[in-house]
Amino acid sequence: MKANSKNRILEAGAGIIHLKGYHNTGIQEILQAAGVPKGSFYNYFSNKEDFGLQIIDYFTGFFLSISKPIQENTAFSPLEKIKKILELFMDLFKSKDFAYGCPIGNLAQEMGDLSPAFREKLKSALENMVDTYSGILAEAQIQGEISRDLDARKAAYFLVSSWHGALIHMKAVKSLEPLENHKWFLFEYVLKL
Amino acid sequence: MKANSKNRILEAGAGIIHLKGYHNTGIQEILQAAGVPKGSFYNYFSNKEDFGLQIIDYFTGFFLSISKPIQENTAFSPLEKIKKILELFMDLFKSKDFAYGCPIGNLAQEMGDLSPAFREKLKSALENMVDTYSGILAEAQIQGEISRDLDARKAAYFLVSSWHGALIHMKAVKSLEPLENHKWFLFEYVLKL
Repeated sequence: MKANSKNRILEAGAGIIHLKGYHNTGIQEILQAAGVPKGSFYNYFSNKEDFGLQIIDYFTGFFLSISKPIQENTAFSPLEKIKKILELFMDLFKSKDFAYGCPIGNLAQEMGDLSPAFREKLKSALENMVDTYSGILAEAQIQGEISRDLDARKAAYFLVSSWHGALIHMKAVKSLEPLENHKWFLFEYVLKL
Repeated sequence: MKANSKNRILEAGAGIIHLKGYHNTGIQEILQAAGVPKGSFYNYFSNKEDFGLQIIDYFTGFFLSISKPIQENTAFSPLEKIKKILELFMDLFKSKDFAYGCPIGNLAQEMGDLSPAFREKLKSALENMVDTYSGILAEAQIQGEISRDLDARKAAYFLVSSWHGALIHMKAVKSLEPLENHKWFLFEYVLKL
């Protein structure tokens, strides 16, 4: 029951913070959305920052729940895996009217300068994403889909950071165009033999 | 005197919002930093949103004040101009401990989903930046520095959006590495013959 309430708070908070940002979201608002009694927040979290840090783990878990099954699916070639992951997120954003963006990118933007604890946690979360793509790109090199001259780690980093920028633009222009443009340049110019 | 106070409010507000974000910045805090009497805010701005929209014009003006002299400097080749602009911003961020990022990108992230008025204004501000780079890339094509097969507008858009992502990462990792990585992939893989 206790674990369940905590999870409901995390889930509701993740949804609200993802759309509205960390500073713009109040604890009461989260508890109301979670349907959990006022005051119970501090049974599970020492303060709002502690909650925010646990939200980042929650988001990393969400990213891996999408990327891992694709990464492990041997029916796809490595480059197909990357396309699948990006396209799956594109479908998700399309269904959400091009809102939200990546919660890790959003929080890096909002909190990177303001909290060392957030910064450390966000660095690990970004590394986690880069690890996923870097692993797939190393596979792509072994299978001869992309050049072995490419630094897979640097390319994975560029893929993630430029994706975060494209997501920011998506939120402003309300279309998939920035994400399509990102995918096009990545695959036409970088991820090739 | 009136115009001077308004400008002081805009300047002080721009600095604070650039670092802390729009929702996380209060009007009183801005007036105090501007050294302008409480209550005078509404002589110049109809509300906080109106102020935020005028701040975006202020930031566009700042971007152009940096990019335009370089764009018009005939001593540089087109690709040198792009490198100069990026490097000038890198020097700026280095001097600010890798904080702030691009205020237009930050606000697109924070406000893109939350305010149609911000969204429209931010779209124009992003277009403005894309125009600058797109113009320089068209020059680079005329001068034979990059391939004529490249869609200069799409490439300029990718340059700006991926730069915004690299800036988000800079704020989290507190180094120039994401910006250096962005520049490297752009120039090694996209902006070439």
